[in-house]
Amino acid sequence: MYMSKIFSLALLSTGLLALTLNGDDLIKKAKDSGLRAIPSDKVELIKLIDNPKDPITDAKVELGKKLFFDPRLSRSGLISCNTCHNLGMGGDDGVPAAIGHKWTANPHHLNSPTVYNSVFFSAQFWDGRSPHLADQAQGPMQAPPEMAAPKNLVKDRVVSLAQYVKDFKSIYPNEKEITFERIASTIAIFEKTLVTPSAFDDFLNGDKNALNDSEKKGLNTFIDKGCASCHTGIAIGGTMQPFELTGKYKFANLGDFKGDSKGMVKTPTLRNITETAPYFHNGGIWSLSEAIKEMGSIQLGIKITDDEASQIVTFLKTLKGRKPVISYPQLPEESATTPKPTFD
Amino acid sequence: MYMSKIFSLALLSTGLLALTLNGDDLIKKAKDSGLRAIPSDKVELIKLIDNPKDPITDAKVELGKKLFFDPRLSRSGLISCNTCHNLGMGGDDGVPAAIGHKWTANPHHLNSPTVYNSVFFSAQFWDGRSPHLADQAQGPMQAPPEMAAPKNLVKDRVVSLAQYVKDFKSIYPNEKEITFERIASTIAIFEKTLVTPSAFDDFLNGDKNALNDSEKKGLNTFIDKGCASCHTGIAIGGTMQPFELTGKYKFANLGDFKGDSKGMVKTPTLRNITETAPYFHNGGIWSLSEAIKEMGSIQLGIKITDDEASQIVTFLKTLKGRKPVISYPQLPEESATTPKPTFD
Repeated sequence: MYMSKIFSLALLSTGLLALTLNGDDLIKKAKDSGLRAIPSDKVELIKLIDNPKDPITDAKVELGKKLFFDPRLSRSGLISCNTCHNLGMGGDDGVPAAIGHKWTANPHHLNSPTVYNSVFFSAQFWDGRSPHLADQAQGPMQAPPEMAAPKNLVKDRVVSLAQYVKDFKSIYPNEKEITFERIASTIAIFEKTLVTPSAFDDFLNGDKNALNDSEKKGLNTFIDKGCASCHTGIAIGGTMQPFELTGKYKFANLGDFKGDSKGMVKTPTLRNITETAPYFHNGGIWSLSEAIKEMGSIQLGIKITDDEASQIVTFLKTLKGRKPVISYPQLPEESATTPKPTFD
Repeated sequence: MYMSKIFSLALLSTGLLALTLNGDDLIKKAKDSGLRAIPSDKVELIKLIDNPKDPITDAKVELGKKLFFDPRLSRSGLISCNTCHNLGMGGDDGVPAAIGHKWTANPHHLNSPTVYNSVFFSAQFWDGRSPHLADQAQGPMQAPPEMAAPKNLVKDRVVSLAQYVKDFKSIYPNEKEITFERIASTIAIFEKTLVTPSAFDDFLNGDKNALNDSEKKGLNTFIDKGCASCHTGIAIGGTMQPFELTGKYKFANLGDFKGDSKGMVKTPTLRNITETAPYFHNGGIWSLSEAIKEMGSIQLGIKITDDEASQIVTFLKTLKGRKPVISYPQLPEESATTPKPTFD
């Protein structure tokens, strides 16, 4: 009798769950909460990421890819964009704080954010000080604890490599010289293409079976717990949420980085999150479920249970995206005029 | 009258040159001097590089490629095989001496040799102390100034990455555990495929027009000057030449590395040489024509003129090979048991 009562309750609960997880309803709920899919239609996607003043072309993407992988854009000739934004490792480096020139850790102990889907961020860098990737890409090349190459060194290296000169001339025929800013903007065009649609996008785009029941349950919990209030939009993060400033939402004091003028840091994207440990702006936590519970406590002022965290992890796994296939580029040969690497 | 005499002499000289550079004769001369082509026939090539006890398979190559690009085989999680043997830069790092863990320069100031065509070397490392790539690959992972990862750390990292475990089990079903040695030998199998046939191979394989007249002239000079006495075989180098030990052939004292027990270093390959400056075991010279003249003086005891060096450079450019197209691998995600990176 007692057993059968439990059994009925379990059935009832399963029934309720099934009702909650109706695909159409959940898609609507997700969209209502601000979550957005990467468009499955390529034309629509291009519209979102392209800048008509400097449109994406195959030639720019190919040149940008070479530059992204070229360690000669660094002072030592050893550190490329891909060193800290490794496209084989979720687009970051897998260490708490970036290590750059002369084995220097980032002085603010900042974790390298993923480059994948960064085109969807409303602001770049943890403090959101940069408006877009073409601007952002100028930072790490110059920063002394990162690639440590002054603008002129980057430019002189590129100009000394005949194949690059040929490529730039062919792509930007009206430009008299190759500028540092143009090098950065070309890298940014490659980065714009680093978009990784996942099972979750397929689901939001209407394929109700793209998520299984556990994943749907996890998504539901993710929304119900309030995670989607900051982790929103196409990047499922990537914005400086204004309501983070109200006082209720205040980022954990996990490092000495001061954030923006209000002490805030950008909400990171959750796409490919299972590949980008450790977490937070200071890489302070390695476990995804611990990170979820920490956010519940600090950002949302709620307790997220182990079970709920586990459900959310199940959902987050569906954000592991399909990466663009990238053929490793053959980089231009050096010439007699190529500035030599220096290590101090 | 005077002009026409010069004209006739020029014609005569061109005639003589044309005679010297007859394709068939030059191919024979090159082969007689010990130069060998990479076989154009794939079966024949495989026969050369394969080890029947651990045959090359697509699955091993794919797994080896992932490991080659995976920085988590290093103590810091930041340095992969590809860091110093960059497949986009001729298979080396373009700096005089390798820089590794904690920004440490190689203590012997040794230049990273190219990994391309290293399967053809009769011995590995500059002092030839390693017999083959499966043995060689164990060195840099462990060396404190390179990847600085003890055997157990490499093994523990790999074993903690589920996709690697799955790959190893599927490829080596009879092996009870993943050993450090097996990790290295799998990397070596990928490296064996890094073979780069060039215009020179096409020429030696019978395409008389694969080299133009200047390139043929350069090849002829290369042989006549004696370069092919050490830069010989398929790798056009890559051997510990016994006759280097006779006293006439003694390597320049350009560093503090002692070489093998006789003080000798391995003859490096000349394949892709235009991409692998700086030159010599200590990366002491950046200019290829200077390097050629230096070798003439020190190894061969002759003066190579600027013009002859320039001819030889023209030939060496024909050794720039067609690189295998490599899609950048997606590496396995970490787990809770993955040993964390350390930087000290």
